[in-house]
Amino acid sequence: MNKFKYLLEPRSIAVVGVSDEPGRPGSQAVRALLKYGYAGRIFPVNPKYAEFEGMTCYPSVEAINEPIDLVIIGVPAKGVVSVMEMCAAKSVSYVVVLSGGFRESGPEGVERERQLLEIARKSGIRLIGPNCLGFASIHSNVYAAFGSITREPRLTPGSVSLVTQSGGFGYSIALSCAEAGVGFRHVIATGNETDVDTVEFIDSLIDDERTSCIVAYIEGTRDGRRLLEVGRRALAAGKPILLWKGGITEQGARAAESHTASMTGTYDFYKAMYKQTGIVEISELHEVVDYVKALAPGKYPQSNGVAVMGVSGGSAIVFADAGEPRGLSLCELTEVTQQRLAPVVPNIGAIHNPIDLTAGYFSEQNKEKLEVALRAVLEDENVGSLCVNLATTGAAGSAVAAEVIGRVSRDYPKPVVIFSSTPAASNSEALAVFAADKVPVLPSPSRAANAIAMLLKYRTTRECHLDQSNNRLDELGGRAYQLPSILQAGNVLSEAESKDVLADVGVPITKDILLNIGEMPNFFGLTFPLVVKIVSRDIPHKSEIGGVKVGLRTAEAVEAAIKEVTSNARRLAPKATLDGVLVSEMVSGGYELIAGVVNDEVFGPVVMVGAGGIYAEILKDVTFRLAPFDVRTATEMLDELKCRPIFDGARGGAVLDVNSAARALASLSQFAWASRDVVQEIDINPMFLSAMGVIAADALVVPKSLVKAEQAPCPRPDSEAALAEN
Amino acid sequence: MNKFKYLLEPRSIAVVGVSDEPGRPGSQAVRALLKYGYAGRIFPVNPKYAEFEGMTCYPSVEAINEPIDLVIIGVPAKGVVSVMEMCAAKSVSYVVVLSGGFRESGPEGVERERQLLEIARKSGIRLIGPNCLGFASIHSNVYAAFGSITREPRLTPGSVSLVTQSGGFGYSIALSCAEAGVGFRHVIATGNETDVDTVEFIDSLIDDERTSCIVAYIEGTRDGRRLLEVGRRALAAGKPILLWKGGITEQGARAAESHTASMTGTYDFYKAMYKQTGIVEISELHEVVDYVKALAPGKYPQSNGVAVMGVSGGSAIVFADAGEPRGLSLCELTEVTQQRLAPVVPNIGAIHNPIDLTAGYFSEQNKEKLEVALRAVLEDENVGSLCVNLATTGAAGSAVAAEVIGRVSRDYPKPVVIFSSTPAASNSEALAVFAADKVPVLPSPSRAANAIAMLLKYRTTRECHLDQSNNRLDELGGRAYQLPSILQAGNVLSEAESKDVLADVGVPITKDILLNIGEMPNFFGLTFPLVVKIVSRDIPHKSEIGGVKVGLRTAEAVEAAIKEVTSNARRLAPKATLDGVLVSEMVSGGYELIAGVVNDEVFGPVVMVGAGGIYAEILKDVTFRLAPFDVRTATEMLDELKCRPIFDGARGGAVLDVNSAARALASLSQFAWASRDVVQEIDINPMFLSAMGVIAADALVVPKSLVKAEQAPCPRPDSEAALAEN
Repeated sequence: MNKFKYLLEPRSIAVVGVSDEPGRPGSQAVRALLKYGYAGRIFPVNPKYAEFEGMTCYPSVEAINEPIDLVIIGVPAKGVVSVMEMCAAKSVSYVVVLSGGFRESGPEGVERERQLLEIARKSGIRLIGPNCLGFASIHSNVYAAFGSITREPRLTPGSVSLVTQSGGFGYSIALSCAEAGVGFRHVIATGNETDVDTVEFIDSLIDDERTSCIVAYIEGTRDGRRLLEVGRRALAAGKPILLWKGGITEQGARAAESHTASMTGTYDFYKAMYKQTGIVEISELHEVVDYVKALAPGKYPQSNGVAVMGVSGGSAIVFADAGEPRGLSLCELTEVTQQRLAPVVPNIGAIHNPIDLTAGYFSEQNKEKLEVALRAVLEDENVGSLCVNLATTGAAGSAVAAEVIGRVSRDYPKPVVIFSSTPAASNSEALAVFAADKVPVLPSPSRAANAIAMLLKYRTTRECHLDQSNNRLDELGGRAYQLPSILQAGNVLSEAESKDVLADVGVPITKDILLNIGEMPNFFGLTFPLVVKIVSRDIPHKSEIGGVKVGLRTAEAVEAAIKEVTSNARRLAPKATLDGVLVSEMVSGGYELIAGVVNDEVFGPVVMVGAGGIYAEILKDVTFRLAPFDVRTATEMLDELKCRPIFDGARGGAVLDVNSAARALASLSQFAWASRDVVQEIDINPMFLSAMGVIAADALVVPKSLVKAEQAPCPRPDSEAALAEN
Repeated sequence: MNKFKYLLEPRSIAVVGVSDEPGRPGSQAVRALLKYGYAGRIFPVNPKYAEFEGMTCYPSVEAINEPIDLVIIGVPAKGVVSVMEMCAAKSVSYVVVLSGGFRESGPEGVERERQLLEIARKSGIRLIGPNCLGFASIHSNVYAAFGSITREPRLTPGSVSLVTQSGGFGYSIALSCAEAGVGFRHVIATGNETDVDTVEFIDSLIDDERTSCIVAYIEGTRDGRRLLEVGRRALAAGKPILLWKGGITEQGARAAESHTASMTGTYDFYKAMYKQTGIVEISELHEVVDYVKALAPGKYPQSNGVAVMGVSGGSAIVFADAGEPRGLSLCELTEVTQQRLAPVVPNIGAIHNPIDLTAGYFSEQNKEKLEVALRAVLEDENVGSLCVNLATTGAAGSAVAAEVIGRVSRDYPKPVVIFSSTPAASNSEALAVFAADKVPVLPSPSRAANAIAMLLKYRTTRECHLDQSNNRLDELGGRAYQLPSILQAGNVLSEAESKDVLADVGVPITKDILLNIGEMPNFFGLTFPLVVKIVSRDIPHKSEIGGVKVGLRTAEAVEAAIKEVTSNARRLAPKATLDGVLVSEMVSGGYELIAGVVNDEVFGPVVMVGAGGIYAEILKDVTFRLAPFDVRTATEMLDELKCRPIFDGARGGAVLDVNSAARALASLSQFAWASRDVVQEIDINPMFLSAMGVIAADALVVPKSLVKAEQAPCPRPDSEAALAEN
């Protein structure tokens, strides 16, 4: 947190643009700082005023003869650049520009924003905004903000930090959480993100000891790869990130474009990143609330087995309905557990899972019994977590339950989640006890199930992506591939050249002979039937010009086919340079997959695998991961496909060699990473998976064109270096 | 509502089983009646007491010399039957048994419950429960209930009626709604449903003028067909039913079984029923709240075009993200609308959809502008509904917005939904105005989108299923099919017989010749290639014993195949009676579908269609509808399939004759309905769909066995008749 310490906890703040005019952002900031009791020095700035809110008002930033950690700028857009220049002259470290009128408002604004960035880069100022609501550090009463952030109800201090690109909607997240009793540490709205962006803030908050959980709303990021790294760092640190990505649909992305002109990026790649980092995806306000509550105790289920216990059978059913599709299982209880439960559960109840304590159970006279029941269940090895359904239990019963559950749960590392629908207003005693013991209380059994499923998924991802085999990934990904010189040229590769590259990488390819034009094969080593294809860098779609002949069973047929594809190509693609003819063994049987790599502007190389043929297009049975990754992650990808049961021999088919496919994907991903500066795209279609292994039957490697390289985003500043200059 | 008028609004109530022992259900009921001001007469019953709560306490029901509309029984289970007998002797119309200890508690309880039902049937008493929380009629202060229903906070009167099988969880629904300001009319927990069940209550509530919307939670129903009819009646009446079905997963169903021993039924068939009746499926507590609010104004979108307007760009993006997968579209605004918006929206805002009013817009000085903007949008022909995002707008701005939006929205038939995240406690003025004008306020943009999507779907279903073509369905379904006599016998049909039945019904079948054993064909009229199959009622799986030969291109090959399948059958199924050999034209090309009928215990005949082959099993690309239905519904089914784009010629394939498939399915459904007493199952697999039409290549019709007929549920009482006797 050092990097932004004196931004978020400044010892002094100058606020440029205060006035008595109602609603001015600067004035709002000063009033909030005063109202909420900011302990540092405040320097209001406006040449027209001698005094503001009882404090000396300075004519300019220059005129302040004291050290200033943070300058808040709230003057109209056209005046912002000159104030920024003064901040640079004064060696200010941090500037928040609340004012709008920049990139979002046309060419003049774009130019203004460029100037702001230029000054920031030259001077080392770290700039937040422009066009942002600002930020608040609740624990230290810093309100470098205006609008809703400064209004009542005030947030209470806590350990959740929120970073949001959209001020208005982002603060809705904070308000929803606050209404459910969640406390905050930092709430930061980043606006246009000219310099510091959401990802950089998330990164720095991982190191903030007092932040236990980071919630973020973004519409896009320039650098998805950095988000991946930040996500991995957070996972290693055990600090969950809850990320709401706006603009995941076509219409949403269009709306985002007109909103912040953000590059929304491909949702599929975000989803891949979530899987690889344990970043928890959010798409509802109450999900943030539920997940923040569920994460607070820092307890994670060690298995998908859940015990459900309570006074409402219907609630248990609803829990089961919501839990099953999310991978939770109402586990069997051991014999021992059932024996322990028998004396403390009424006869008309149930001692199997879900445990029916029967209506009215939560009462003073059942306290000891409840404790026995809870301990029995929490000590059951099959039980990974517990949901207790209080349902409509009244205030008195709920208070008893809270006291016992809160106390007992402290002794166990397993998550305990409560469903209660008793109105909060009449249930304050129980809710206070649960809150003190960090036992999350959720308002529906389905939301309790979702929250437990989230905890389970987070733990599983953490285990999987932090283990030995994944740590070796850097090594694998970074290994010095001897990149084929053919890739350096930037030309399109032919099928034969593409397959050579892949074979070299470790992706099995069909057995081929490449003939010169006019040459006839000797078939040495090839097994019939064969396929004949024209080879030309200028003909990417060979079939369309009659450049492919399949199922050739005799030497004569092959020779005839070679002549035919050559003459077809000459006739239908007269301008194409023909590089030769490829004679390949024909793959028969096996399941048709597609695989590939896209070198994305935001995320860098991403690997795809999916069901091939018509189903690829119609069912979109495909999955993605950011390269590089290992065989375990590749296996995860294959396991996700809807067609997965076919690999295991569904309907009496052969069992396919999934491992060979996983190895090929992992190799492909590592090559994609190593070659990211020169390769734009790799398509393997079809890739056949059989009992014998995986084999690429056709492939195309597309190098990065020189044009694309020029369009690459300008390099980001080295912010550490910039800071060091201060 | 006449049927249950004096149950739900009784003029006098006897309560059997009152005592000073704490927590007795009967005592709780009496105290609730007194506390909440029930205006009718109350007769407490307990032979040990002379007085209870200051009223005369009667030794028995018989001893009460006044007319009694309703008897509430709360005595322990073993005493319930004799009280019930006294009620019968006294010609009581309605009895609510709160006591547990019946079907849910073992054989003795089953017998007790049987006796209760017997008395009810003989006497004409309508029985609610046993093992239920009872009911409350909020507007008339009737509390025939105990437990949470009688506890504070008291529900406020309103027009939503709730019927629930599970008392505990059902009342959680009521509490969640109440917390959001929703008022109730009747809240009914049905428990074991020995006599009156949820479906019958829903049915009667359709006719309750003061009930505008019915919410129900069920775990199962004995008679899904009746639920279908009730749903259709509610749709015709324009009275939405929100149904939460517990036990839709395997684990949920298992939990339900142990809870109320309900027959949970097949979730796929429930989903079909929702589509055919407009019953709104619920799976979250807040969905009930949101939907009840959204339905209250009785306004439905006439198109999927939504305009989004507000002060938070992020909220509009989140709305779009949630709306798109649910079929909503952020529509283009007309030129005229944009011209009208231009003068009333700030320059830095946006006059296209989503309309950005810019931060701080909702204020006293913008009132007139806001009105112009609202009218412009609501008068746009592309706009079917409007969402206004107040987001974090403060109390003052929200109050202004509420006044204008509430007033303007009254003039338009289009739904207007508000998203506000301002805490309710500090926003009471705005919320009261919105409530008075029935403008639903939802706590997230995604929930606003879901609510609008629900309204759209309800309207679409209503239009589709109430129109002319569907009204003719009864006629179609009820037409006097000449049921083939072969079905009456109850024997398994061979493929040839099954296909004959289907051809007769109107499902195209492959061209066949049925030969006797030993006979050779003359091929008259058949086009090669052909298929040869053994025909025997005793061999349902022909392929397994070598009884099928395909791709036969010559007369010689066919003759050899006939000999081979016959000898294979004789050798491998020596006990089977061979009925002959079927020679069929082989279907080549076309897309492989499966279709069929299941005559379900709960729902009666249900028709299925889906993608065939391995994908049927793995991708479960199938859909269902309850028979009978028309071509339009059949088309809807085909449109739902994931493989649907293939029918339109995806990837350059032929355009398939979808209409012929729809006609075949509609015919199949009408036959399934007409033959429901004799046909148990129909399987058509494969059914090929090509550009030439649809054709059943293999089929099996399974008659209802005599055994099954005996197991059919006993007939339900004619409740109207029973009532007439009173």
